[in-house]
Amino acid sequence: MKLATYKDGSRDGQLVVVSRDLSSAHYATGIAGKLQQALDDWGFIAPQLQDLYEALNQGKSRHAFPFDPQRCMAPLPRAYQWADGSAYINHVELVRAARKAEVPETFYSDPLMYQGGSDDFLGPCDDVVVPNEAFGIDFEAEVAVITGDVKMGSTPEQALEGVRLLMLANDVSLRNLIPSELAKGFGFFQSKPATAFSPVAVTPDEVGDAWQGGRLHMTVQSTWNGRRVGMCEAGPEMTFSFGQLIAHICKTRNVRAGSIVGSGTVSNKGVEKDGRMDWPKGYSCIAEKRAIETIQDGKPSTEFMKFGDTIRIEVKGRDGQTVFGAIEQTIAAPV
Amino acid sequence: MKLATYKDGSRDGQLVVVSRDLSSAHYATGIAGKLQQALDDWGFIAPQLQDLYEALNQGKSRHAFPFDPQRCMAPLPRAYQWADGSAYINHVELVRAARKAEVPETFYSDPLMYQGGSDDFLGPCDDVVVPNEAFGIDFEAEVAVITGDVKMGSTPEQALEGVRLLMLANDVSLRNLIPSELAKGFGFFQSKPATAFSPVAVTPDEVGDAWQGGRLHMTVQSTWNGRRVGMCEAGPEMTFSFGQLIAHICKTRNVRAGSIVGSGTVSNKGVEKDGRMDWPKGYSCIAEKRAIETIQDGKPSTEFMKFGDTIRIEVKGRDGQTVFGAIEQTIAAPV
Repeated sequence: MKLATYKDGSRDGQLVVVSRDLSSAHYATGIAGKLQQALDDWGFIAPQLQDLYEALNQGKSRHAFPFDPQRCMAPLPRAYQWADGSAYINHVELVRAARKAEVPETFYSDPLMYQGGSDDFLGPCDDVVVPNEAFGIDFEAEVAVITGDVKMGSTPEQALEGVRLLMLANDVSLRNLIPSELAKGFGFFQSKPATAFSPVAVTPDEVGDAWQGGRLHMTVQSTWNGRRVGMCEAGPEMTFSFGQLIAHICKTRNVRAGSIVGSGTVSNKGVEKDGRMDWPKGYSCIAEKRAIETIQDGKPSTEFMKFGDTIRIEVKGRDGQTVFGAIEQTIAAPV
Repeated sequence: MKLATYKDGSRDGQLVVVSRDLSSAHYATGIAGKLQQALDDWGFIAPQLQDLYEALNQGKSRHAFPFDPQRCMAPLPRAYQWADGSAYINHVELVRAARKAEVPETFYSDPLMYQGGSDDFLGPCDDVVVPNEAFGIDFEAEVAVITGDVKMGSTPEQALEGVRLLMLANDVSLRNLIPSELAKGFGFFQSKPATAFSPVAVTPDEVGDAWQGGRLHMTVQSTWNGRRVGMCEAGPEMTFSFGQLIAHICKTRNVRAGSIVGSGTVSNKGVEKDGRMDWPKGYSCIAEKRAIETIQDGKPSTEFMKFGDTIRIEVKGRDGQTVFGAIEQTIAAPV
């Protein structure tokens, strides 16, 4: 099934069930008012939402209305956890190669993750408000999952059982704040403003066998200012599966229902072409493009985002239909 | 007023109002079922809770019952944000001096903070369950605040207005996991298991002029296995106020109601005595004691906590009465 959260002026919005083709929706009122409530009691509430979803798809629900992504908050407008991995090691390799740094051997066996802020997420069509263009505004197209409860000490296989919903994320990064922040040693903070999520979150069965081994075997499309810059495969090159990422968190603590776990920037290896490396699938963040430019030309030539720039992130199924709806945001100065 | 959350089998527990002397309590049912709900609509709900608090203190509330900290969850059992500072620069100086590292000049003007997990907090008397003693189990006695909404770009003065409640925290750390984790560059993750909080959270007026300049001018007592090891002053040596810590978060994002912000380990400077440094106020985490031993004797002699060890963290008022109740935890292996 597909779920979204409609803006209603409240902090958590209103849970809606969305039809498979994203054409219509229906309030889940009477079943669960908000998504966290459904996640807290998934075994009991999910089947009821599923019934409503099936009725909606069959055109049998009485109070259906046209679905409008513009009215969406993030599926979980605020969450108790946002833990983001950097699971595509190719991304790490490129960024490090650009600054002539080695990738430590352990990075291939031990996932890189950071704890993000989760009190103020952005809806899929909300502006990305940044105080200053000079902060180096970048998008990051990612796959994310929402979990149920996963116990401390769970294996990757057990952890994978805890995946309830899949969605897309735009993990906005302020690149020029990162070097000094990471140099302090405590990780990201000011360099990671509010993250945005796709209009709908979907249960894994919605993507069929594209959800395999804890990876989403689909293509993440990134379109910057109307120009397609990324058609990146999210599946085969994801070094650590979502099961591994969740198990990484669980090593020393429980993961509780409604935790969001991200894949990190989706990234594909380059290919050699006429003696020169090429990245035909493009990029899912500008930092990677700049890393490639630095490796090839000695310096980056693509600039970060400016106020007024737009970013669109989407995944389409084999039938050409959008799966999660599109993240479509504009970069904006504070009002 | 003083607020706590009673265990009732649910994820968020039941909000209770607790009398000033912590002797009695009263369910806040009918006003707000849980603390997050009160924080979401503080202007409307807080005055009603205050009325109940006053009736309770006057012995006029009908359904009061004896308050039992053992029945408490964390005041906010799960939160949308847990951002922990390291605001006592003396702590940073000691830990760095022990490994012969300099404290960068910027550390005196730019707060050090990390984003923690907030989906699974511990109640004040819950066991600290750690998979392995060899992880280097340490307590960290801290002061923490719960905020309302604070806008992006707020000044420290504006941010301070957002402080709703004060409490104590035991920010458990797994010291032996820290070096390799921080070396990865993305900050703490597995080295920070679930944090515990004091039985009650109190509004700043409860501590009178001890809440001054965004600092709690009171003594944090830490008792490890029944031995008083810390009587640390939380006020004067807090390099960054809570206003500054919250404003640090707000530089690039909004802080939303129910965010918890921590001070980091409360720490006081040593004094010279007969030509040798002494730390008469003791310590609020074992790592600091070990740093002092390393500086003075070349190596640490105090070991980290073992299964069965206990830690008690408390603040008493001038009248000798406990302000927040005591955090009283036992270190335990997983069942």
